Amino acid sequence: MKIKVIVTLKEGVLDPQGKAIQQTLNGMGFSSVNQVRQGKYFDVEVDDSDETKAKEKVEDMCKKLLANLVIEDYKII
Amino acid sequence: MKIKVIVTLKEGVLDPQGKAIQQTLNGMGFSSVNQVRQGKYFDVEVDDSDETKAKEKVEDMCKKLLANLVIEDYKII
Repeated sequence: MKIKVIVTLKEGVLDPQGKAIQQTLNGMGFSSVNQVRQGKYFDVEVDDSDETKAKEKVEDMCKKLLANLVIEDYKII
Repeated sequence: MKIKVIVTLKEGVLDPQGKAIQQTLNGMGFSSVNQVRQGKYFDVEVDDSDETKAKEKVEDMCKKLLANLVIEDYKII
């Protein structure tokens, strides 16, 4: 079973990479772009047929490795 | 309006970073993890109230900057 996870920076945490992308997009003519924030995405394939159990495991992985909870949030989708 | 984009490596493209995460998770006791693939996530804030138009613009940005279509796929969510 494949579980999808998005890890994003918390509100208020500076994102210089996103800022650079926004400025580049503005320079390319996409003047309507106000802000870009970059995050990470993970496709985790777990050997579990029960979705609830698999998601619980992946949540545990997020807390222990995939996300830095001091500055990042995670969302299992 | 905030548009969310996920950029992932195409099937068959090697993902050493994902492999490293998988091995680390296995080593931490998550033995049921078969595969991890890492991708990128973008929150793009566009000055457009029309969702269809905003998504079209973001699709254009994906093709021109956010994704490398030779090795990556994008998905607007």
